[in-house]
Amino acid sequence: MRRIAIVDTTFARYDMASAAMEELRNLCSVRFERRTVPGIKDLPVECKRLLDEGCEAAMAFGMPGPTPIDKQCAHEASLGLIWAQLLTNKHIVEVFVFEDEASSEEELARLADRRAREHALNLYRLLFRPEELTKRAGTGQREGRPDVGPIRR
Amino acid sequence: MRRIAIVDTTFARYDMASAAMEELRNLCSVRFERRTVPGIKDLPVECKRLLDEGCEAAMAFGMPGPTPIDKQCAHEASLGLIWAQLLTNKHIVEVFVFEDEASSEEELARLADRRAREHALNLYRLLFRPEELTKRAGTGQREGRPDVGPIRR
Amino acid sequence: MRRIAIVDTTFARYDMASAAMEELRNLCSVRFERRTVPGIKDLPVECKRLLDEGCEAAMAFGMPGPTPIDKQCAHEASLGLIWAQLLTNKHIVEVFVFEDEASSEEELARLADRRAREHALNLYRLLFRPEELTKRAGTGQREGRPDVGPIRR
Amino acid sequence: MRRIAIVDTTFARYDMASAAMEELRNLCSVRFERRTVPGIKDLPVECKRLLDEGCEAAMAFGMPGPTPIDKQCAHEASLGLIWAQLLTNKHIVEVFVFEDEASSEEELARLADRRAREHALNLYRLLFRPEELTKRAGTGQREGRPDVGPIRR
Amino acid sequence: MRRIAIVDTTFARYDMASAAMEELRNLCSVRFERRTVPGIKDLPVECKRLLDEGCEAAMAFGMPGPTPIDKQCAHEASLGLIWAQLLTNKHIVEVFVFEDEASSEEELARLADRRAREHALNLYRLLFRPEELTKRAGTGQREGRPDVGPIRR
Repeated sequence: MRRIAIVDTTFARYDMASAAMEELRNLCSVRFERRTVPGIKDLPVECKRLLDEGCEAAMAFGMPGPTPIDKQCAHEASLGLIWAQLLTNKHIVEVFVFEDEASSEEELARLADRRAREHALNLYRLLFRPEELTKRAGTGQREGRPDVGPIRR
Repeated sequence: MRRIAIVDTTFARYDMASAAMEELRNLCSVRFERRTVPGIKDLPVECKRLLDEGCEAAMAFGMPGPTPIDKQCAHEASLGLIWAQLLTNKHIVEVFVFEDEASSEEELARLADRRAREHALNLYRLLFRPEELTKRAGTGQREGRPDVGPIRR
Repeated sequence: MRRIAIVDTTFARYDMASAAMEELRNLCSVRFERRTVPGIKDLPVECKRLLDEGCEAAMAFGMPGPTPIDKQCAHEASLGLIWAQLLTNKHIVEVFVFEDEASSEEELARLADRRAREHALNLYRLLFRPEELTKRAGTGQREGRPDVGPIRR
Repeated sequence: MRRIAIVDTTFARYDMASAAMEELRNLCSVRFERRTVPGIKDLPVECKRLLDEGCEAAMAFGMPGPTPIDKQCAHEASLGLIWAQLLTNKHIVEVFVFEDEASSEEELARLADRRAREHALNLYRLLFRPEELTKRAGTGQREGRPDVGPIRR
Repeated sequence: MRRIAIVDTTFARYDMASAAMEELRNLCSVRFERRTVPGIKDLPVECKRLLDEGCEAAMAFGMPGPTPIDKQCAHEASLGLIWAQLLTNKHIVEVFVFEDEASSEEELARLADRRAREHALNLYRLLFRPEELTKRAGTGQREGRPDVGPIRR
């Protein structure tokens, strides 16, 4: 059975990993390797370890805080996730929700939940239904929010 | 037959990949390996996989949104594309159109279409007609917009 | 016995390494390899050397000053620590305290001490109790400060 | 005969490569491998390919535009050129002229021409006369502009 | 005899390398491999070459100018120096003095001289007296300026 790495943080304020795993379980039959690390800068190496151990792809969940240093950490983590992918030749779907993307905690939770689920669908398509992604090429998909759609001419 | 990797996103709002492939088909006989990923940060690893599997070069299409975080993502993706090239010793022609480069959706579509086609021509020249590029060295070419030309003295 | 690399700087103004080692000694039986380097940009290679020599994980302690150049150094060091992790497939728990995170020297010392100890606990859990981290996934943990907790809905 | 890689762009508005090659021909007997790529982000991989194929060193010419995105591209290209050097253990002399370094097109052309020639001399010295560089250590050399000289005490 | 790489630039306005070598000669018996490159972005590959050829450690000297592009170059050079260290598992002590750190040329020269000498002492301790560094862990050392000392509680 195909193995998927699921890596999240104790820093985040919503359990996006569980939402994504629930979604994936409804879509396909895969085995999860779940690990939790303290913060987003710990995600790249944990994903790389699991990919090196045989997982086919990974999802990396993080919720950066609202300050400039939080955003710098997110930037560093994103670069690390890109390197980890290039070193393993496998996809890591990054699911980051910035705390200041929402104006209330309730909205933030809804956004995080929905983004996690829509990116789980992205991972499913990357692995099992690549043609479903190509059908949507250039169509303005937005994970966790309403799609903006293709340019209207 | 030479194989070219064509990688684009579901996030973008215009199908630049199809425009570029149409252009390339008129210029030469190549086989395309097309893949679509969710967002621009997923482009580097997908390009690297296809280049490692034998494609000779790649085109990577993206349309970053107008916010600061979108621009940071574009920066991260661009760095990833440069690493992917250095790890494979092959060219990846990056075709990014920023949503705020145009003031209307119609202008944005025209810009995206034209930039995709002009970069397809760049890729053709890199692979088949390098002397055509050297003829244009230092001449102020601008893809998708009027060329600015060489410095007038 | 498992070996842990402990790397700190002469630039920092508080001995976070000793606090972390004290905490780890209370939690488990490990051997420390401690090295001190001049500044935070020297941390990545020192951590990598110790990890390559057999340490299982590392803690890297730094206290960047308040100026823009200090923050740029911290950014560079963080990227270096992420690369060192990807090159070794081992965790480096980064413990950075920014001088301007506190409004008095006393508060800064308390913050540094507590953050060092809480990250020591994180390292312990990464190595010996990963399930303890997963139990806290998405719960808003903050090292050195009161936890913010999960989103209230 | 020693081979030097000369890589420039169609984006630039002045043919700096020709100026540099003219200068180098007056200084020594080398063979040039000249390639032209579309933009500065294409420079790193082209330089690396030529260095891997046996060139001893490279010169990379670019003329970034005046907007923030142009400067970000230059930053990405510079990082790529540094990686390419570390991966090949060979020098790539970066010759970038920013469009907004001059207030008229004529001044820009003079600056680009002179900087290209002075960096050609730098490359010559790196390869054939390293002691000439050490003689000038800490003397405030500025390529393309009047030298500022050492600190006056 | 142990070999130390000493790499500086013609761009800098003070001969920090000579000051550092004088200091090191008073401390220990080592052989220097000195090279001078044009600017700070040329430092990483030159250091890496010398480390690959058998030098045990390196010192890299630079004096970035006061403009934003100078600071970006310093950032790129610093990242390159960190990569060079990770690729060689050897220390490169970075000695950068920013031109705008001082308000007069005389002060700048004093700062550069003193920072070079104090970092020479750091290199000596890294190689021969690591316990001297650990004794100073967390004590607020500042190279080239008065130490700030540990936090007063």
